Amino acid sequence: MKILVIHGPNLNLLGIREKDVYGTDSLSEIDAKCKALANELGIEIETRQSNSEGEIIGLIHSAREGFDGIVINPGAYTHYSYAIRDALAAVSLPVVEVHMSNIYAREEFRHKSVTAPVVRGQITGFGSNSYLLGIRAIVEVIKNAPS
Amino acid sequence: MKILVIHGPNLNLLGIREKDVYGTDSLSEIDAKCKALANELGIEIETRQSNSEGEIIGLIHSAREGFDGIVINPGAYTHYSYAIRDALAAVSLPVVEVHMSNIYAREEFRHKSVTAPVVRGQITGFGSNSYLLGIRAIVEVIKNAPS
Amino acid sequence: MKILVIHGPNLNLLGIREKDVYGTDSLSEIDAKCKALANELGIEIETRQSNSEGEIIGLIHSAREGFDGIVINPGAYTHYSYAIRDALAAVSLPVVEVHMSNIYAREEFRHKSVTAPVVRGQITGFGSNSYLLGIRAIVEVIKNAPS
Amino acid sequence: MKILVIHGPNLNLLGIREKDVYGTDSLSEIDAKCKALANELGIEIETRQSNSEGEIIGLIHSAREGFDGIVINPGAYTHYSYAIRDALAAVSLPVVEVHMSNIYAREEFRHKSVTAPVVRGQITGFGSNSYLLGIRAIVEVIKNAPS
Amino acid sequence: MKILVIHGPNLNLLGIREKDVYGTDSLSEIDAKCKALANELGIEIETRQSNSEGEIIGLIHSAREGFDGIVINPGAYTHYSYAIRDALAAVSLPVVEVHMSNIYAREEFRHKSVTAPVVRGQITGFGSNSYLLGIRAIVEVIKNAPS
Amino acid sequence: MKILVIHGPNLNLLGIREKDVYGTDSLSEIDAKCKALANELGIEIETRQSNSEGEIIGLIHSAREGFDGIVINPGAYTHYSYAIRDALAAVSLPVVEVHMSNIYAREEFRHKSVTAPVVRGQITGFGSNSYLLGIRAIVEVIKNAPS
Amino acid sequence: MKILVIHGPNLNLLGIREKDVYGTDSLSEIDAKCKALANELGIEIETRQSNSEGEIIGLIHSAREGFDGIVINPGAYTHYSYAIRDALAAVSLPVVEVHMSNIYAREEFRHKSVTAPVVRGQITGFGSNSYLLGIRAIVEVIKNAPS
Amino acid sequence: MKILVIHGPNLNLLGIREKDVYGTDSLSEIDAKCKALANELGIEIETRQSNSEGEIIGLIHSAREGFDGIVINPGAYTHYSYAIRDALAAVSLPVVEVHMSNIYAREEFRHKSVTAPVVRGQITGFGSNSYLLGIRAIVEVIKNAPS
Amino acid sequence: MKILVIHGPNLNLLGIREKDVYGTDSLSEIDAKCKALANELGIEIETRQSNSEGEIIGLIHSAREGFDGIVINPGAYTHYSYAIRDALAAVSLPVVEVHMSNIYAREEFRHKSVTAPVVRGQITGFGSNSYLLGIRAIVEVIKNAPS
Amino acid sequence: MKILVIHGPNLNLLGIREKDVYGTDSLSEIDAKCKALANELGIEIETRQSNSEGEIIGLIHSAREGFDGIVINPGAYTHYSYAIRDALAAVSLPVVEVHMSNIYAREEFRHKSVTAPVVRGQITGFGSNSYLLGIRAIVEVIKNAPS
Amino acid sequence: MKILVIHGPNLNLLGIREKDVYGTDSLSEIDAKCKALANELGIEIETRQSNSEGEIIGLIHSAREGFDGIVINPGAYTHYSYAIRDALAAVSLPVVEVHMSNIYAREEFRHKSVTAPVVRGQITGFGSNSYLLGIRAIVEVIKNAPS
Amino acid sequence: MKILVIHGPNLNLLGIREKDVYGTDSLSEIDAKCKALANELGIEIETRQSNSEGEIIGLIHSAREGFDGIVINPGAYTHYSYAIRDALAAVSLPVVEVHMSNIYAREEFRHKSVTAPVVRGQITGFGSNSYLLGIRAIVEVIKNAPS
Repeated sequence: MKILVIHGPNLNLLGIREKDVYGTDSLSEIDAKCKALANELGIEIETRQSNSEGEIIGLIHSAREGFDGIVINPGAYTHYSYAIRDALAAVSLPVVEVHMSNIYAREEFRHKSVTAPVVRGQITGFGSNSYLLGIRAIVEVIKNAPS
Repeated sequence: MKILVIHGPNLNLLGIREKDVYGTDSLSEIDAKCKALANELGIEIETRQSNSEGEIIGLIHSAREGFDGIVINPGAYTHYSYAIRDALAAVSLPVVEVHMSNIYAREEFRHKSVTAPVVRGQITGFGSNSYLLGIRAIVEVIKNAPS
Repeated sequence: MKILVIHGPNLNLLGIREKDVYGTDSLSEIDAKCKALANELGIEIETRQSNSEGEIIGLIHSAREGFDGIVINPGAYTHYSYAIRDALAAVSLPVVEVHMSNIYAREEFRHKSVTAPVVRGQITGFGSNSYLLGIRAIVEVIKNAPS
Repeated sequence: MKILVIHGPNLNLLGIREKDVYGTDSLSEIDAKCKALANELGIEIETRQSNSEGEIIGLIHSAREGFDGIVINPGAYTHYSYAIRDALAAVSLPVVEVHMSNIYAREEFRHKSVTAPVVRGQITGFGSNSYLLGIRAIVEVIKNAPS
Repeated sequence: MKILVIHGPNLNLLGIREKDVYGTDSLSEIDAKCKALANELGIEIETRQSNSEGEIIGLIHSAREGFDGIVINPGAYTHYSYAIRDALAAVSLPVVEVHMSNIYAREEFRHKSVTAPVVRGQITGFGSNSYLLGIRAIVEVIKNAPS
Repeated sequence: MKILVIHGPNLNLLGIREKDVYGTDSLSEIDAKCKALANELGIEIETRQSNSEGEIIGLIHSAREGFDGIVINPGAYTHYSYAIRDALAAVSLPVVEVHMSNIYAREEFRHKSVTAPVVRGQITGFGSNSYLLGIRAIVEVIKNAPS
Repeated sequence: MKILVIHGPNLNLLGIREKDVYGTDSLSEIDAKCKALANELGIEIETRQSNSEGEIIGLIHSAREGFDGIVINPGAYTHYSYAIRDALAAVSLPVVEVHMSNIYAREEFRHKSVTAPVVRGQITGFGSNSYLLGIRAIVEVIKNAPS
Repeated sequence: MKILVIHGPNLNLLGIREKDVYGTDSLSEIDAKCKALANELGIEIETRQSNSEGEIIGLIHSAREGFDGIVINPGAYTHYSYAIRDALAAVSLPVVEVHMSNIYAREEFRHKSVTAPVVRGQITGFGSNSYLLGIRAIVEVIKNAPS
Repeated sequence: MKILVIHGPNLNLLGIREKDVYGTDSLSEIDAKCKALANELGIEIETRQSNSEGEIIGLIHSAREGFDGIVINPGAYTHYSYAIRDALAAVSLPVVEVHMSNIYAREEFRHKSVTAPVVRGQITGFGSNSYLLGIRAIVEVIKNAPS
Repeated sequence: MKILVIHGPNLNLLGIREKDVYGTDSLSEIDAKCKALANELGIEIETRQSNSEGEIIGLIHSAREGFDGIVINPGAYTHYSYAIRDALAAVSLPVVEVHMSNIYAREEFRHKSVTAPVVRGQITGFGSNSYLLGIRAIVEVIKNAPS
Repeated sequence: MKILVIHGPNLNLLGIREKDVYGTDSLSEIDAKCKALANELGIEIETRQSNSEGEIIGLIHSAREGFDGIVINPGAYTHYSYAIRDALAAVSLPVVEVHMSNIYAREEFRHKSVTAPVVRGQITGFGSNSYLLGIRAIVEVIKNAPS
Repeated sequence: MKILVIHGPNLNLLGIREKDVYGTDSLSEIDAKCKALANELGIEIETRQSNSEGEIIGLIHSAREGFDGIVINPGAYTHYSYAIRDALAAVSLPVVEVHMSNIYAREEFRHKSVTAPVVRGQITGFGSNSYLLGIRAIVEVIKNAPS
């Protein structure tokens, strides 16, 4: 089983910017935690970050080859990128959407996710642990899929 | 560490009603899964179900004595019970909100959670696994809380 | 054939409060009229009143045993109780929603019924006769259901 | 006692179009059922269908002579014809609004009736039986009117 | 100078229906008053009433031949007939919109006129005098038009 | 019979500013036309202009002594001055609201008059003639008032 | 004269939860202050608290026997309980609504009270003193009622 | 193959009114162009114009006999006639909606088509060529329909 | 302790206008009642009325010298004067907002107070007693302020 | 004459993803059909696809050199890319917007096109034929442009 | 070149009230800075402050004599004074709107400026420097105006 | 002191497209003016243009190294790019937002800036001078920052 983890815009600044909102883990530390969990669960993961909507669409498309599922934190694109939504809906893989902060406790515009209606489920508010819970979630979804 | 798991209205019908939306697990089977995970994680949990808003408020209040955190599926009250929101905000315990279905992929009225802004995080869409992920999430939150 | 008639909040005051809106029949007089019609139609009915949302949910659940349909006047819960809506959707029985006053001729907030989308049909505006028409309606629905 | 039954636009296609929504009864079969019930109740009825807003207004005006009440299914005009609303409000006869489908379980635009605030009551969702219940309802309204 | 006065839907009931809102003048009495004023002002007028949107559109089109202006009370069509609005905009004649009641003091839906943006001016609230003021207004508009 | 004509804010610039919208008549020319009509109709009028909301309220209050009616062009205050609305509602005199331009053919914010619901009627779009029609209207209102 | 004071949901935690919002007085201390004022004013009061919407409706109904007025803090039910609103409207007693915090200075959803339109008046923002002012207010209302 | 082309309200004035918006072709010139294209494509067409909503509904109903598809320009009815929408949905023929002007570049109210959701496709903005493109489009739809 | 009581626009007509809404007390009678209560409570008060927004802002500014608190009835300015709101927020004195009528039981536009979010509390619906309760309220606020 | 055809995001998956919505033609098959039609019409076309908003803006800019018009399917960017709208408005070329599916029959968010107000016309709902109709349309637009 | 600088309501309290929002400069210090810059730029300025909407309108009108442009901070009137907007639009002078705080980072109601659509440009968020930048801006606008 | 000036999408066409809106200066002419001012003020600036949201985010991130502030014209991204907003909020540098046209005098969608709430201030409407004023503004902000 192989999972693609996609980090959206500005997440390359994790651990550097706004630590009170997003915690002190850097992106590479989060990736390391994800890989450690993958090892523990006996699966493979690959992680990618991009600030570009077009590139993220390309990453999602590319997952059709060789991946069994996607864990994605679309960052601010969550709230308006219908193009990413269409990409997620177009590939036939299960997807889990994750957010480090509780988006429902922040500004009004963050309360709406345009991607949420096309994913399997959403996990928000647990800092870097949101990614780990997302990996556990997608693994169960894939395991329980009718073959 | 002791966690209170609260099931809101109509969840007593799980495994009986609308199996295509909520899966085939009955409430007691879900409770059994939760307890198995609790054992695995070395914590205690207690589970309660109520159809009554007032009773759920009372359950939340009662958790101030002897519990370290709450995992709650407020059912349909999620979308309008400001009284449950106030109860969750009033107790000083960390709370995780869970939903079995992906509420963002269902009717418009289910897209808004009035409780989400006052909880630590939210997990939606993974069937009975939402509860298990919720328990894992709250355990991490409690472990990492400053003592 | 057996029908459960549920009267929602404040309907215990019928014939006492606001007679210009709801008429002079008391709740027991309405129940008597319903029973007389049931006799005439050769069916059984049982009537219940509650001010409590949780109790009404319980009544709806309980109708799964021994009843063929529900006639419900959800009172003010009509306008916001998604929990009662979920209960009505969860039981597999046909449901008819009735209102004594014409809710569309009153305050704006009464123009929206959150339960209407999950019931078979709605009858509003005919005073105590709304219940009698509701009983006639549910009887036809049940008779015509594919067996 | 004499009742005018008015069928609005597109109802001439009943039994031909969209049978899953409106059932298999043709308009003439519904009219026959209405007349049979009228006989049973010892009243007279006359039935009319029109696709034209202006003609429906004219039918309503004409009912002032010789009719004691109106049962109307305004079809799609229900949702925007303030001119029909004004006509219904202008004549001094009691009116019952009926719909064969449950308009509250269909598209958003069908949830609002601009005629409902000026009629005595509304009956929706019971197929051709909505007309029969409407006739029963108007008869009671007329019987109980202060003379 | 020749003016077409158009009375919209339900205005044939003037003096018969809702006298508290519209006064006791019948439509023919209003027409007589209009003609008396026309005589006094030395102009010709013609008056027409229709309940049909299509017919009113036809009347407006026909005014292009032999008329110098239109005074119209579109009745309830005021609030939604974009087809009448288009007809009024399409003919090159000046138009005055009149209402007998003060539409801004009545139900919310009457506060919006879809025809008002394409007419020269609007006069509301003066009973049958609204027509007389409308005739005076259109006469001045025509007199002052650049030739 | 004595009428108070009130000109609201910026109307002192009439004939100077935006002649394409408001015409070339100066305020004193309009006042002269109003007085000429008053003579013709055998009534008295007094005209006042103010840019100040508070002063306009005072003018309205003062009309309770010695005046039989008010013709007011509230200018931009039309769209938000609930204080002027309250003043107009508080005095027991009939009021006619006039506008020189067709406010319904201009910016969205000008489509709503907060004063219109409490006046007798409204006349818009006829340039300086709006005032003259307003005076004719108020005179009829006063003449026909029950004594 | 006898007054029923009703405390709504979560108010049993007063003095324990969120002291910065609600102050340090416990519910029993507030009740004691209310009773002291009652003594001073020469009236009787009874105080009740409930977290349950249905129970609060029952309390309001019961006040019809032996009470002259109600002072109620409906807590979060203020913002959506049309059932409590109906109960308050149904009993013929004068009602004063009180809130300890200034609900208009808090979250958007607290700015709307669905009960306010059916009570005599509302007092918000004075901590426990809101209750005392509410008692003074209801006493004056009752004293000045026409007998 | 036979196609019915329906022209809605005010389109009889084409080439006469507002030439800057709709071009200089008269309706009969457009009909001639449509027929020339029909000849070229080896199909039959019939063209009809009506200002009346009811008549347009009747035309749509009548197309069930002898026609394979409809090309309709509903004019201003596009924006509010749910009755025409229902007629289009009721007949089982493919429908193409056309507009001569780009309705999305005009007034706000023209941006919403209530008929668009029930037709096969929509073509807007190409003057009389919109009809020709509409005919080409419907022909392809019919050719590719499963037989 | 010295309190400034400010009466907003149109309140000079109290006892004269709309007695069914505002009662029969004149403004000077209310001022007398306020002063009597001030005597009883051992404080000083000064009362002022103005119809002018700018003057009211000036009054609020002036209270910074020699006053300990403000009781204000902003009249209709309550609903839109952000300038008065800013003035109230700018002075460091505690403020109580009062209304004689229950603004939440009147027109929709009166349900929103733009000043309420910046005052200490609000009292509405008790006629002239609203002022007296407001004085009692501000006195307690000032007494309990940390010195 | 030379036309640039631009395919927006996710259209590279045509024929692979969601065939029930978009048909079975791959993007290269559509391009081939477009070129065949171009040959037939005696014009040149060039086709480009991009998932990137920035790249699409660049493509539009580049069309200023050597192209006479643009046919664009902006995909999901249709609904929010004001940057693409600005690019289309900035180049002086005529533009036709095409969509394969009927966007007005799908999710609410697809009903609004932010690019439509700045293009010549729009064609939606005809699968790959939308492109061919779009090419025919733009050719006519260019032919008829004043030289 | 001569510029009128207008300070709106509450700005007389600058340096006294809310220093965290508006800085520590008093109004006279700001005026001094403006005059120093005027000297540097070789122009004249005059500065005025008023809390009264009517007076501000008068100031704007008066600028038609002897001034070449206006720099205005309308304070809270920015958000609702259509009367000031009309005054600014009526005079033929260029206008620059300035705000000391970043109004888009404050309460929702401050995000809308009703005056912005009729001025040349707007400068917000730079404390007293907003005035200086505004003076520089208006000078360039005037210099570059076609003579 | 070193400032990064960022030009958003379509600004590479300045001086070429829509000169009536944006003036005749080309982007390189504006950059030259900016550099001349920088020299005059004794600071360094660097200017960059991009049509790509992702690239602009990258530019903002890169400014953390070696720059003291940002002047940005986000073009159409202003109105929806929450990703650029997040980037601006994430870097700790002061930012000034500039627009050449008065965005508040153009289409409705341009009235909202999603970036404005996270920048120091905004300057709109002064053509290329907006950039120069923006540079002056940021220099003052940086000079006055607490070190």
